[in-house]
Amino acid sequence: MPGVLELLPLDQVAFERMLDTIKVEFERFGFLPVATPTMELKDVLLTKTGGETERQVYLAQSSGAHDQGHEPDLALRFDLTVPLARYVAEHEHQLAFPFRRYQIQPVFRGESPQHGRYREFYQCDIDVVGRDRLSIKHDAEVPAVIAAVFERLGFGAFTIRINNRKVLKGLLDHLGVANPDRQGAILREVDKLEKRGPAAVGKSIAGLGMESAAVERLLDIVESGPVKGEAIGMRLDKLDIDHPLLHQGLSELRQVFDLMKAQGVEDSRYALDLSIARGLDYYTGTVYETLFDDHPDLGSICSGGRYDDLASLYTSARLPGVGISIGLTRLFAQLMEIGVIKTAANPVTVLVTLLDDVGLANNLGLATALRAAGVNTEAVLEMGKLGAQLKYADRSGIRLALICGEDERARGTVVVRDLASKSQDEVASAEVVGAVQRLLASR
Amino acid sequence: MPGVLELLPLDQVAFERMLDTIKVEFERFGFLPVATPTMELKDVLLTKTGGETERQVYLAQSSGAHDQGHEPDLALRFDLTVPLARYVAEHEHQLAFPFRRYQIQPVFRGESPQHGRYREFYQCDIDVVGRDRLSIKHDAEVPAVIAAVFERLGFGAFTIRINNRKVLKGLLDHLGVANPDRQGAILREVDKLEKRGPAAVGKSIAGLGMESAAVERLLDIVESGPVKGEAIGMRLDKLDIDHPLLHQGLSELRQVFDLMKAQGVEDSRYALDLSIARGLDYYTGTVYETLFDDHPDLGSICSGGRYDDLASLYTSARLPGVGISIGLTRLFAQLMEIGVIKTAANPVTVLVTLLDDVGLANNLGLATALRAAGVNTEAVLEMGKLGAQLKYADRSGIRLALICGEDERARGTVVVRDLASKSQDEVASAEVVGAVQRLLASR
Repeated sequence: MPGVLELLPLDQVAFERMLDTIKVEFERFGFLPVATPTMELKDVLLTKTGGETERQVYLAQSSGAHDQGHEPDLALRFDLTVPLARYVAEHEHQLAFPFRRYQIQPVFRGESPQHGRYREFYQCDIDVVGRDRLSIKHDAEVPAVIAAVFERLGFGAFTIRINNRKVLKGLLDHLGVANPDRQGAILREVDKLEKRGPAAVGKSIAGLGMESAAVERLLDIVESGPVKGEAIGMRLDKLDIDHPLLHQGLSELRQVFDLMKAQGVEDSRYALDLSIARGLDYYTGTVYETLFDDHPDLGSICSGGRYDDLASLYTSARLPGVGISIGLTRLFAQLMEIGVIKTAANPVTVLVTLLDDVGLANNLGLATALRAAGVNTEAVLEMGKLGAQLKYADRSGIRLALICGEDERARGTVVVRDLASKSQDEVASAEVVGAVQRLLASR
Repeated sequence: MPGVLELLPLDQVAFERMLDTIKVEFERFGFLPVATPTMELKDVLLTKTGGETERQVYLAQSSGAHDQGHEPDLALRFDLTVPLARYVAEHEHQLAFPFRRYQIQPVFRGESPQHGRYREFYQCDIDVVGRDRLSIKHDAEVPAVIAAVFERLGFGAFTIRINNRKVLKGLLDHLGVANPDRQGAILREVDKLEKRGPAAVGKSIAGLGMESAAVERLLDIVESGPVKGEAIGMRLDKLDIDHPLLHQGLSELRQVFDLMKAQGVEDSRYALDLSIARGLDYYTGTVYETLFDDHPDLGSICSGGRYDDLASLYTSARLPGVGISIGLTRLFAQLMEIGVIKTAANPVTVLVTLLDDVGLANNLGLATALRAAGVNTEAVLEMGKLGAQLKYADRSGIRLALICGEDERARGTVVVRDLASKSQDEVASAEVVGAVQRLLASR
C-alpha cells in the first residue's frame, strides 16, 4: 500500500531499537508511558473548525454499520496531542500533576502519498502538563530531554532552535499589527522563511496588509539566523523594543536558556532562532524546531512548544503544558536512505544445524542450554544439506553455526563455526555455551 | 470509549513489561519481528466469503473522500494472519524460509462492547512458514515457545492442549460423514463441548444428520478429557481405527509429543485433548488451545494450529505454516482483575526535591549524575512546600526523595529519604549516586 513504511525483519529490528532507545531516555528523565486507542469518537477528535487536518482525518465504522447506511462515528487519531487532552481530562483525578507522559504510537493522516509523506507514521511525544499553572522551567526541561535522546541515538550533530511566540506577537503589535488573526496569518508566513526565502515571504506578508517598512523591520529582526552560546544573551539584549508582551517573551527565553546551561546541555546543541514561529496558533510561548547540522534538508525532526490550555474542550480545569514531538517514521526512513541508520544485526546469533534425524534430541538440548544462557538460538528441525543450512544462516545474518554429526556426538564435541570469518573450532559439548558466549562477546 | 482498554501510566508500564517479556522469549527461539500497517486495502483484507468477521471489520476512508461520497477503500486489520499472508507474498523473495516471524500489534473488530470483548486488542502471534513444505516438527516447536513464554511470564500453571484435525476428520469419515462441509459444521459443534456440554452438542450434531449411534461413538472418543505424560501414548494407541487420514493424524501427534519431550517441556504443561477442534476450517492438522490450570474460566488464552497454505490468494507459491496467537489485551485485563498482574512499580525511582530556587542548578547537577548512572530521576523545577513534594513522590510511587537545602549545600551533603520506610540518611554529595544505587538494589 502506498504511503506506509513496511520493513523487512532486520530493518524492523533497527526501528524497534530506535524506539527502545527513546523510551529508555524518556523514562530516565521521569516520564511515564501512556497509550490511547487508535480510534476515538469522531466528535471527540474533530473539535477544531475546518482546516486541512480536518479533511485528512480517517473516518471509520464497522462494515455492519456501513451496510446499514450509518455515518461513520469513529476517527483514527491524527496526532497524539488531542488524545492526550482527552486522556488527561478523563483521568484528571487519578493523575499526579505536573503530569509527565510520553507516548509512542502511530498516527494517521489521509495524505496523498508522495515521497516522505506517510499515511501512517509513528509519533513520539513528551509533554509536561500542569494543573492551573506550569513553571516556565519545564520549557527548558523538554528540550534537555530531546538533546539527551538525540545524543543517545547517535545520528550526528543537531541543533534545537528555540524561540518564543510572545516575542513575535509583541513585535507585530509594536509594528502596528494588533489583530490576533492577522498576527497568526503573518506568523504562518514567517514559518515558511526557510522554505520560501525572505523575498517571497516579505511579499506575502505585505499582501496581508502590513506596511512595507514594517515588513522590512520584521524580516530584519527574525532573519538574523540562529545564534548559540554567549551570543544568545547579546541577541536578546539587542531586542530593546519597549513592549510588555515582547518583554515577557524575552524574559522567558532568558530563563529557558539559563536552565539549558544549568542542565548541562552542550552549547552547540541549542540556539536562539527568532524566525521559528510554528504555524499553529495553539502554541502560546516557547516554540522548538530541531535540525541535523549536517542534514538541514531533512527539515525539522522534532518540534513543539508551550500551550496555555491543553484540554479546554474536555474539562473546565486549566491545564497549561509544554511538549515536543518526533516524527519517527519519516526520520527513520530518511536516515536509512542516507545510510545513517543501517539494517540491524540479526538478534538471533546461533543456528544449530541438523545433520541426521537421530541427532535432533541432542541438538535440542544444545539449543535449550544456549537459550537458558540468554543466547537467541534457532534450531534446524528439518534435515537438509549442511551447505544449504550454512547458507541460510549466512543469508539471515546469523553469526554462529553449531555442527554436531555422528562423529562429534561420538567424541562428545560440537563444532562452532563463525560464519563471517569462516573459522571453526571443535569444543566439548559441556563447553559449548561458554565458547559461544566468548565468540559473541569478541565482536 | 467502550470496548477499549485504556490504562493509567503504571498499569501501562505493567502491560509493556508483559509485551517485552514475550518479545525477548520469542527472539530467544529465533523469531524475528514484523509489523504491518494498521490499514490495508479493503479488497486485500476481505477475501473470505461472508461470515461474522466480515461484518465486524472496520472500514476507513479519509474525511475528504467521505465528503465526496466515495466508498471506503481501506479496512483495519482484524487479525495478524491475513496481513502475514499478504506480507509473505509481497516480500517472498527477500525472506529466508522457513520464515519465523513474531508480530505484536493491535487488531480491530466491531464487536458490540460487553465485558471482556474489545474493539481494539493486542494480538501476539508467532508463525513458522515454509516454502512448498514445512516439517511437522515445527508443530512441536511452536507450543514449546509458548510454554517458555508462559513459564517466563509467571502467571501460574497452564496446559497447552493439543489435537490434530486429521484425527477428527478421519474419525468422522469412518463414522459415515464424508462431506467436508458437514465435517466442518460438526467440528464447529465439537468445539463448543466445553461451553455447552455433551448433551447439547450431541443434539446439535444429530440435528446435522449424523446417526445417533455415530454421535455417541464420536462423543465417547473426544469427550475422554485431556491426558498428560505417559498416558498420551496409550490414548493414541487405543484409537485403533483403520483409516488412513486418522492414522496420519495419530502419527503426526506422536511426533509432536515426542518432540515436546525432547525439547525439555515439562510433562505437566501439555496434554492430548481429542475434543479440541478449533472452529476455523483454515486449520488442517495440529491444533492448540491453552488454559490456565487454576483459571479455566478464562477460556483459551493462546490458540492456533497448522495450515496447508497461508497465502494462496496472494501468490502461487505454496506456503504451509503453523502458528499460535495470544490475545494479550483480554488476558492482561483478566489477570489484573483477579490480581495475578499488579500495577507496576514506578520505573522512576528518584525525585530531587527543590527547597529554594537558588538550589536548582545544584539539583540539576545531582539529577544529571543519577541519570548518567542509569537511575530514572525526576527533578522538581517549581518550588513548593517540601511536604507537598514528598506527598507527590509517595503518591506517584517514586521510592526515594533527595533533599538538599541551604544547610545541606553548606555541608556539601544531600539527604536521601526512603519514602516507604520513611527513614533517611545524610550523605556527602559525591556519594549520592552510590547511596541511591545501594538503596534501590536493596529491595
